[in-house]
Amino acid sequence: MWCMFGLLNMRINEKRLKTSFDELARIGGVRDGGVHRPALSNADFEARKWFRERAGKAGLHVGNDKAGNLSAVLRCGREGSPTLLLGSHLDSVPNGGRFDGALGVLAALEVLLVVREAGISPGVHLEAIDFTDEEGAHCGLLGSRALAGRLTTEDLEHPNRGADAFQSGLARLGLTPSDLVAAGRDPRTVAGYLELHVEQGPVLADSNYDIGVVTAIVGIRCYQLKFIGRADHAGTTPMNSRLDPVQGVSAFALDASKTVVSHFEDCRLNIGNMKVEPGAFNVVPEAVDVTLELRAPEEEKFDLLEKTVLDVARKRAEQCHLKLEIERVETLRPAATTPRVRRAIEEAADSLGLRFLRMPSGAGHDAQSLKEMGPMGMIFIPSVGGRSHCPQEFSRWEDCVNGANVLLRTALKLACL
Amino acid sequence: MWCMFGLLNMRINEKRLKTSFDELARIGGVRDGGVHRPALSNADFEARKWFRERAGKAGLHVGNDKAGNLSAVLRCGREGSPTLLLGSHLDSVPNGGRFDGALGVLAALEVLLVVREAGISPGVHLEAIDFTDEEGAHCGLLGSRALAGRLTTEDLEHPNRGADAFQSGLARLGLTPSDLVAAGRDPRTVAGYLELHVEQGPVLADSNYDIGVVTAIVGIRCYQLKFIGRADHAGTTPMNSRLDPVQGVSAFALDASKTVVSHFEDCRLNIGNMKVEPGAFNVVPEAVDVTLELRAPEEEKFDLLEKTVLDVARKRAEQCHLKLEIERVETLRPAATTPRVRRAIEEAADSLGLRFLRMPSGAGHDAQSLKEMGPMGMIFIPSVGGRSHCPQEFSRWEDCVNGANVLLRTALKLACL
Repeated sequence: MWCMFGLLNMRINEKRLKTSFDELARIGGVRDGGVHRPALSNADFEARKWFRERAGKAGLHVGNDKAGNLSAVLRCGREGSPTLLLGSHLDSVPNGGRFDGALGVLAALEVLLVVREAGISPGVHLEAIDFTDEEGAHCGLLGSRALAGRLTTEDLEHPNRGADAFQSGLARLGLTPSDLVAAGRDPRTVAGYLELHVEQGPVLADSNYDIGVVTAIVGIRCYQLKFIGRADHAGTTPMNSRLDPVQGVSAFALDASKTVVSHFEDCRLNIGNMKVEPGAFNVVPEAVDVTLELRAPEEEKFDLLEKTVLDVARKRAEQCHLKLEIERVETLRPAATTPRVRRAIEEAADSLGLRFLRMPSGAGHDAQSLKEMGPMGMIFIPSVGGRSHCPQEFSRWEDCVNGANVLLRTALKLACL
Repeated sequence: MWCMFGLLNMRINEKRLKTSFDELARIGGVRDGGVHRPALSNADFEARKWFRERAGKAGLHVGNDKAGNLSAVLRCGREGSPTLLLGSHLDSVPNGGRFDGALGVLAALEVLLVVREAGISPGVHLEAIDFTDEEGAHCGLLGSRALAGRLTTEDLEHPNRGADAFQSGLARLGLTPSDLVAAGRDPRTVAGYLELHVEQGPVLADSNYDIGVVTAIVGIRCYQLKFIGRADHAGTTPMNSRLDPVQGVSAFALDASKTVVSHFEDCRLNIGNMKVEPGAFNVVPEAVDVTLELRAPEEEKFDLLEKTVLDVARKRAEQCHLKLEIERVETLRPAATTPRVRRAIEEAADSLGLRFLRMPSGAGHDAQSLKEMGPMGMIFIPSVGGRSHCPQEFSRWEDCVNGANVLLRTALKLACL
C-alpha cells in the first residue's frame, strides 16, 4: 500500500505546466489568444515536435503508434504491466481556443513528470497520449477510435477535406489509411483511460463548482424531419385554407423545446437547420426540412426522449393537416464512465478541497472511443461563459491547475488498484 | 342612348368562344391539360400568330405596339374617340393552366366579334389586348407597365432569365428594351380597362358565387427579418442558456399568423423562406433570416397590418433575448378599382341573374398597371379548389361563359357612359 501514504498529497508543478501551456499556445496562435491547429496541418506537426522534444528532454519514451497518436511513456518496473492512458488531443478546430484538448495532454505529461521526479514506480505504465484528429479536420476521433480497434475502412472513405488532403497528411507521419485500421491495441494491455478537459459549456462556471465528474458522454441521434403541406399562391389563398408547413414546424419547435426543458433536464434538443421549399416570397411553402439533433446520457432515457419528441412532431403535423416524414440519419450511443473511476475522481477532488458536480458531457471526446478498452473517466474544469471552439474560449488558470491535480491524484489512485 | 335598349340582353357566342379556347389550349399544351407558354417562347409566338389570324380573319385591325402588346381593334365611327381596353395575357407560367390569362384575352376578342356582328357602333373604340409577359418570364407585368408609361430603364436591368434571353426574345418582335420604355400611351386616348380573369383562389368556388367583383388588387410589402441569437455548442449548452433564434422565429410565425387571421381578414401573410446560420446539426443557430410577405387591399389598412405584424416580431424577439433586424425589400401599392366600373360589373351580373361577391384580388394583374390610365375594373370567375399556376387549374365552362357575358355587358355599359 505504498501509494496510500504521502503520495496522495502530491501536486503538479504549476509553474512548469504554465510554461508548457504558454509555449504550446503560441504554436498556431491566432488573434485574441486562439489557436488554429487542425490535425495534420503544419501547426499540428509543429505542436507534435514540441511535445516530442519536451517529453524526450525529460527522459520519457516518446513515439507514434500506427494511428499517428503521439505518446510519452513512463514505464513502471514490471515489464508485462498494463498501461494507464492519460490524454486528450493537441489539434484544434479552425480558429479554436488554446485550452480545448491541449490542457488535457499537457496535464497528462505533467503527471508523468511529477511521478518520475518523485521516484515512484507505480503499478502500471503511465502514458500521456495526444490522439490524432479528435476535432475531425479529416475524420473525428480518428486516433482514439483507431487505438480502440473500432475504425473500419468504410469510416475512412469520405474524409472531411477529401481523400487527397487526408492521405498526404498521413504520409507526413509515414502512414496510410490501412495502417490506421490496423492500429488497435489489445485491451488487456490497457489499465484504463483518464481525460482532463474544459467543460465547453457554462454549467460549472455558472454554479461555482471547481470540478465536473463526467457521468457519461452523451449519445447523439440525428434526424431529418420533413413537414409536407401544399404549395399555394400566397395572395389568393386565404390563411385558413392553407396547408402551411411553417406553421407545423413552428409549433413543433416551441413544443418540443419546452418538453425537453421540463422533462429531460440532462438531455438536449437542437434544430440546427430548416430548409423551405420552394422558398419564394409569394408561394406558401410546400415543405420544410428540419435538421433535428437529440442528445441523452443513457440509452433508456434516449428511447423515451426520442419517442416523446417525435410524438410532438407527429401531433403538431397532424393538427396542421401536414404529412410528416422522419428519417434517423445518425446514431452515436452514450458512453457511460466507469463508476470506480468516478469515485476515484471524487475522492481526489475531496482531497484537494474542491467542490465537484456529477454531470454528463454534452460534447464528444476521445474518452468515448475507449469505453470498451477498460475503466474510463473524465474530469471537467469550468469554461468561463461556456464559450467553446473559438478564440474567446477561456478557463481560469487556477481551475486548470485544480484539474491537473485531480488528474494526478486520480491516476495515482488507479495505478494502485 | 342606343345602348340602353336591347343591347343589354346581348350574349357572347358560347360555341365560338369554346372553339377558340380549345384551339389556344393546344398551343404549348402539356400533360393534364396544362400549358407551358412563357412569354417570348416559341409557344408564345405561336399563340400570338393564332390570335393575329383569328382576329384578322374576323376583319379586326391587328397589330403590336412598342411593348409587343398584341391587339385586335374594333373602331367606332368617330376617329378621335378614346379606346376601351379589354384584355389579359396569352403567356403562362412554366407548366401553368389553360385558363389563367388566356380566358381574359379570348373573352375580350369574343366581345369585339359579338359587337361587330350586332352592327353596333359604340361610343369608343374597343381593343382586345394581350399584354406581353404578365407572368414575368423576363419581367412581370412588362407590357401593361410599358403601355402605362411606367417602365424605366432600371426596371429592365435584371430580367429574370438574363439580358441575353430577354433581348433575343424582344428581337423576334423587332423590339429593343428602349422601345419598351418609350411605349407609353397618352391616358387621354384610353377610355378605361376591363379584365376578366380566373380567381386563382378558392373563395368564389367554396361559397358558390358566380362572379367576383374585384374591389382592389392588393398591395404587397416584402421584408427580410433577421432574428439574431448566439451560436453555441448544441451538446454542452443547456437549453435554458441558449439564445436560439429558431425559438423566436417559431413564436413569431405562430403569433403573427393567428393575428392576421383574427384581425385582418382580407389581408395575407406569408413566410416564404427561412435560412438558418450556420445550419449544422450540432450548432445552436446564430441567426435565422425570414422572408416575409404581407398583402393588403388598402394603404391605411396596410400601415396597421405592417405595424401589428412587425410589433409581434419585435415582441417575440425580445422575449427570446434576440436581436431583430428588419428590412423592407419591396413595395407594391394596392390598386383600387374604379367604383363606377364596379357598379357596371354588378349591374351586368344582376342582368344575367348571377350572384356576385365583392372581393380583393390577392394576386397581381395587368389591371394594376393601368390604374392611373382611366377607369379600371376586374371580373373574377370561380377556380375549382383554388388551384392556380399548375395544369390542375380549372374553371367550369359555365363560369367561363358567365364571365365573358359579364365582360360583354360591362363593356357595353362603359362604352355608353
